[in-house]
Amino acid sequence: MPQVYTGATALPLWTLYLAVVVGGVAGATYAARRGFDVIGVLALSVTTGLGGLLMRDILLARGPVVLRDSGFIWSAVGAAVVGFFFAGYIARFDRVLLALEALSMGLLATVGTDSALRAGLGAMSAIAVGTIVATSGPLFRDILGGDAPQLLRPGVLLGVIALAGSCLYVAVEAWTRQPLLSQILVILAVFAGRIVALRWHWETRPAEDLASRAWSRWSRHGQTSDD
Amino acid sequence: MPQVYTGATALPLWTLYLAVVVGGVAGATYAARRGFDVIGVLALSVTTGLGGLLMRDILLARGPVVLRDSGFIWSAVGAAVVGFFFAGYIARFDRVLLALEALSMGLLATVGTDSALRAGLGAMSAIAVGTIVATSGPLFRDILGGDAPQLLRPGVLLGVIALAGSCLYVAVEAWTRQPLLSQILVILAVFAGRIVALRWHWETRPAEDLASRAWSRWSRHGQTSDD
Amino acid sequence: MPQVYTGATALPLWTLYLAVVVGGVAGATYAARRGFDVIGVLALSVTTGLGGLLMRDILLARGPVVLRDSGFIWSAVGAAVVGFFFAGYIARFDRVLLALEALSMGLLATVGTDSALRAGLGAMSAIAVGTIVATSGPLFRDILGGDAPQLLRPGVLLGVIALAGSCLYVAVEAWTRQPLLSQILVILAVFAGRIVALRWHWETRPAEDLASRAWSRWSRHGQTSDD
Repeated sequence: MPQVYTGATALPLWTLYLAVVVGGVAGATYAARRGFDVIGVLALSVTTGLGGLLMRDILLARGPVVLRDSGFIWSAVGAAVVGFFFAGYIARFDRVLLALEALSMGLLATVGTDSALRAGLGAMSAIAVGTIVATSGPLFRDILGGDAPQLLRPGVLLGVIALAGSCLYVAVEAWTRQPLLSQILVILAVFAGRIVALRWHWETRPAEDLASRAWSRWSRHGQTSDD
Repeated sequence: MPQVYTGATALPLWTLYLAVVVGGVAGATYAARRGFDVIGVLALSVTTGLGGLLMRDILLARGPVVLRDSGFIWSAVGAAVVGFFFAGYIARFDRVLLALEALSMGLLATVGTDSALRAGLGAMSAIAVGTIVATSGPLFRDILGGDAPQLLRPGVLLGVIALAGSCLYVAVEAWTRQPLLSQILVILAVFAGRIVALRWHWETRPAEDLASRAWSRWSRHGQTSDD
Repeated sequence: MPQVYTGATALPLWTLYLAVVVGGVAGATYAARRGFDVIGVLALSVTTGLGGLLMRDILLARGPVVLRDSGFIWSAVGAAVVGFFFAGYIARFDRVLLALEALSMGLLATVGTDSALRAGLGAMSAIAVGTIVATSGPLFRDILGGDAPQLLRPGVLLGVIALAGSCLYVAVEAWTRQPLLSQILVILAVFAGRIVALRWHWETRPAEDLASRAWSRWSRHGQTSDD
């Protein structure tokens, strides 16, 4: 454990700033499209961009790491300014933003998982922290925006991929012992998974569907064996 | 104060795991019945099961006690699996789940209050922490599920009983100085209170009702004494 | 940095208790008017009154400062009792409550910003913390009450003024090095700004309006120079 915990990962810090900018722009355009005002755009930019990293600091209780480095706030504020003035323009580049969001979600998952492992938490807790860090931004955005969180409803595999990425990072890092390699690998895997899911419309199904399907298959199987 | 704070109470740790499982199953079935997907069921199981204990760790700022013990996460994940596949089945045992929830709410209230007292907080703050720990799970479930929190609306005495249990624990523990005895007593009292409230449909009334009633009684009393 | 961090500011502690009472009464009357029950009124009083200060303690990770001083909880509980019984009565003094809320928002902004500066954070982070501390109470109230947060939507300049107050405090405090003077100055400025905004109906505009306006002006300007 380092003497002063900085939350640093193997990848350079600017990648994390970039993730904050991407999340911030996504939050700001979301707010701008719904007609929020200056403070709404700013708040949703900061919340969506920094929400995940703030949750990491709160959950791991290692001090306000994100707040100590003003680069993070500047990134979120810059994203808010961009989102405020160019929301309509950015909307035309939906695909670019989706790709950037996929990359930054992978990064956040590895950063969260890695921070938790370095704080001495076990694999399960690290996976939980990684998933929370990767998904808190959009989650807080929906809560502050007054929407029912999209993350939890059936749809494109957002949370599943964040969870899978966190699991993968724990496995790869335990196996290779190379944080940098593991981070890059997981980010690429998360990116690929997200793009594939979007392209082929892979979606998660509601829970009860699967449950009743499992039951009905079981009972049919039971009937056949009885016959 | 212990050197490494473990958040342990007089009752053995498995009781707390059980409370997490009960909360987790409640959260998972809630999610499954509303058609959430895998990640929704998992997220609501973890949030409902662990939300209270996570709030304790965040409010008392004594480190991620819950995250350090992977037993807690396993309990919540196990509950999610059960809730995902058996949501329809569990729904038939409404009463059993209600009884278990009443027991685990009592336990969480005592654990929260006890942790706060051991962290050196005063009685009032300990009661606040106990009530928050006992009620945060269902509260977070409603917020994540996109519902207006049921806790705060008139209905069965959920929050009132959590508050009463926390008050009772402070009083009994100060009087007997026996944490184990106090815990068991409070859990039984909370259980009894919850069951009685459900059976006889004791409900809290909206605030203004009571206020205007108090005023009208006062004014009537004033008139009578004037006559 | 003091040995035991108390979160104290230059202004005496009772001013902060008063801010908690004002926020608590606002939260309690909000809850009472919407027909919440005892626990709803209590919860919204505590959340609205203490939400900002709790967020400060959570974000700065300096221990449960607010919870250690039971004066804060008593203030919130007292406010809940007042709000519960006098919600209808208080509603008649809308202007007084608005003025008190403006004063307490200014105080909370300076307290948040000052605490962050004393914790060694930079100016940007301190401004963010100040704004969060000043606005979290009403924000949490809306989330718990099941409303879409008013703070983020176009309307009276609530968040903008909290943000401006935090910026002003950083500037004035850096310039004068006199926390007490800076606090009083900022509180008066926030109060004046809020009252002026209410009186002359200064409102923030939705984001896209401004963006398209900026664009259309730019393009018109471009056309003119082309002609």
